[in-house]
Amino acid sequence: MSLVTLTTDFGPGSHYVAAMKGAILSVNPLANIVDLTHGIRPQDVRHAAVVLEDVTDRFPADTLHVVVVDPGVGTDRALVYARIGRQHYLCPDNGLLSRLARRTPPAKVIKLDRPEFWLQPVSNTFHGRDILAPAAAHLSLGTIPERLGSPLKRLVDLDWPEVRLAPNRIEGSVILVDSFGNLITDITQKMLTGKVTDKRAHLVCGIRESWGIQRTYADMPPGSFIALIGSSSRLELAIVDGSAAARFNIKPGTKVTITWE
Amino acid sequence: MSLVTLTTDFGPGSHYVAAMKGAILSVNPLANIVDLTHGIRPQDVRHAAVVLEDVTDRFPADTLHVVVVDPGVGTDRALVYARIGRQHYLCPDNGLLSRLARRTPPAKVIKLDRPEFWLQPVSNTFHGRDILAPAAAHLSLGTIPERLGSPLKRLVDLDWPEVRLAPNRIEGSVILVDSFGNLITDITQKMLTGKVTDKRAHLVCGIRESWGIQRTYADMPPGSFIALIGSSSRLELAIVDGSAAARFNIKPGTKVTITWE
Amino acid sequence: MSLVTLTTDFGPGSHYVAAMKGAILSVNPLANIVDLTHGIRPQDVRHAAVVLEDVTDRFPADTLHVVVVDPGVGTDRALVYARIGRQHYLCPDNGLLSRLARRTPPAKVIKLDRPEFWLQPVSNTFHGRDILAPAAAHLSLGTIPERLGSPLKRLVDLDWPEVRLAPNRIEGSVILVDSFGNLITDITQKMLTGKVTDKRAHLVCGIRESWGIQRTYADMPPGSFIALIGSSSRLELAIVDGSAAARFNIKPGTKVTITWE
Repeated sequence: MSLVTLTTDFGPGSHYVAAMKGAILSVNPLANIVDLTHGIRPQDVRHAAVVLEDVTDRFPADTLHVVVVDPGVGTDRALVYARIGRQHYLCPDNGLLSRLARRTPPAKVIKLDRPEFWLQPVSNTFHGRDILAPAAAHLSLGTIPERLGSPLKRLVDLDWPEVRLAPNRIEGSVILVDSFGNLITDITQKMLTGKVTDKRAHLVCGIRESWGIQRTYADMPPGSFIALIGSSSRLELAIVDGSAAARFNIKPGTKVTITWE
Repeated sequence: MSLVTLTTDFGPGSHYVAAMKGAILSVNPLANIVDLTHGIRPQDVRHAAVVLEDVTDRFPADTLHVVVVDPGVGTDRALVYARIGRQHYLCPDNGLLSRLARRTPPAKVIKLDRPEFWLQPVSNTFHGRDILAPAAAHLSLGTIPERLGSPLKRLVDLDWPEVRLAPNRIEGSVILVDSFGNLITDITQKMLTGKVTDKRAHLVCGIRESWGIQRTYADMPPGSFIALIGSSSRLELAIVDGSAAARFNIKPGTKVTITWE
Repeated sequence: MSLVTLTTDFGPGSHYVAAMKGAILSVNPLANIVDLTHGIRPQDVRHAAVVLEDVTDRFPADTLHVVVVDPGVGTDRALVYARIGRQHYLCPDNGLLSRLARRTPPAKVIKLDRPEFWLQPVSNTFHGRDILAPAAAHLSLGTIPERLGSPLKRLVDLDWPEVRLAPNRIEGSVILVDSFGNLITDITQKMLTGKVTDKRAHLVCGIRESWGIQRTYADMPPGSFIALIGSSSRLELAIVDGSAAARFNIKPGTKVTITWE
């Protein structure tokens, strides 16, 4: 676990990110820290859960991902280490890993309950810095996860809407708005393959609609509202050279329906 | 000084940050550069001074912190190296270190006046890149600070409001608004300990008020305006799951009074 | 090419940046990745071209700059490797390098057409992650550029306005708005030297005007609209302690005229 990534809702300009880096580097000055994103919407556990699902697998095996989106900081919610697939995670147990864990059940979950690995005194409002950062540093130095706490049976789950598949119709939702304002859905390429004839698809997102599935953004003129398979192999709705989220005021959770003949 | 941090008011998306990194890496390609924050409000020396006070001590001993918030660039204000506690600093001498230096008097201050260590030609508007960055690179390679300039007696100080302590009352100010919109004050946990009965405290911030001191954000329902001891051991005012700064339009400098029976 | 920089229009908080870092580190876990900027305006190839011209030369020789501003992703626009001066570039061939290439003709241009070096399956919408990132990783490991594709005669050029030089008059344009709102022009210090008497210069930018060329920002009172030679040796227009771009709503492309007696 020589590589440590950070995902937070602190905002890219926040000095709280630096406080976490300082805490990690104070224990392991050679830790290789990479910012995954600090642009998670404040307190938005679901936003982070989708980003983690889409991005963490892109990292080398045995990368350690530290995630701090923690509206329940200081309450009795647990802090956990989890191994899922080839990746390692440290985060509050509040559903942040719920999308990843549905795809691949965690091979190991440890509740961080050994204060001797924490930064003392532990604050009530910043466990990312005081508990997760030193835990990350120790793991990056080779400490085995079992030393940091006790085994936990299962992670907290969240209620994610199911995609509904019917013979000539798929109903899903927008699960992520990216930095361009593109609307990324929970409808995957796999659900569509072999079923939908691209040209005859009809999409409805909120009160907006679009026809056909394009191959890439530049296939249609600027300003068009289009559907395409995005870079995470999901159905995506976009305005060419514009922001669909801003123009239509569409947020995660909005229903998306695709029908075809 | 193998670790170099950068703090600026350039904004997280600014290519001026890259220009500084390029200048450092051109002298020492192995420098380990960490972004502390680039989210200091433009020209706001006081904002940076508070952030530096709260964060730099979190870094390993002998970290070198380069700070560029420099409204007087190109005037006769000095550029300095300072050692304060276990940390090293390079910055314009405009009060950026005034909070740190009040807590711990600098052990060494050097005025950077040896142009042979600068990037030539030196611009009139970007000494961070042309003077501080190469100085940082040379220090990170082992050059002793004394080679970069001449000793300076004292750093420029700023007039910081004093916290007023009375038997049943403390008067302080908001000194920092964090990325969540929480209001961080200059009233420390130490000033409150053993005095204030948490439940009976009455707080006034501008024209807003709050009762009691909570342990953490989730102790009160979303939308509540609460006080608590934040992660830098300071009294903090916050709206649960919201932004107190945005809702109440409160800025640094606003008075905060806490009274108790 | 041990140092790899990233320049994108993804925004500083975007997880797409992380996806690229993951893709690079998966091939070369020891790659030294530095963020140049992720604050390029969405799809704005010209914005990036100016930033690259002003900043990449500041990096050590043999740095590899990966640039993803790619409105034509998935179309038949090429992806290229180019060597220009002491630096290496990987980017879509859409004019991103057009300012650099005018100053110094590329010593080598390679069209990336060997899919065996790409991340499979290649998406239609994120070639930065699927083609450029693995190419960068392979180059950083010592692969020679020729292995990644076939030679290309020339790069795509863009039509950049020429600066018009007359005996007592220079006409140029704003080419960049920086993070402080300063207006950076294509009129260079070199064009002005020995010609313009600083005190007698008269500048017009859009419908605004200013007299004289100052040495640095602090030479005039806060709020003044001033001209000076900025840190990239270009004529720059600024409001002291303010944002000229925001106050006057001036954008890149706005004409700037300087006359003198």
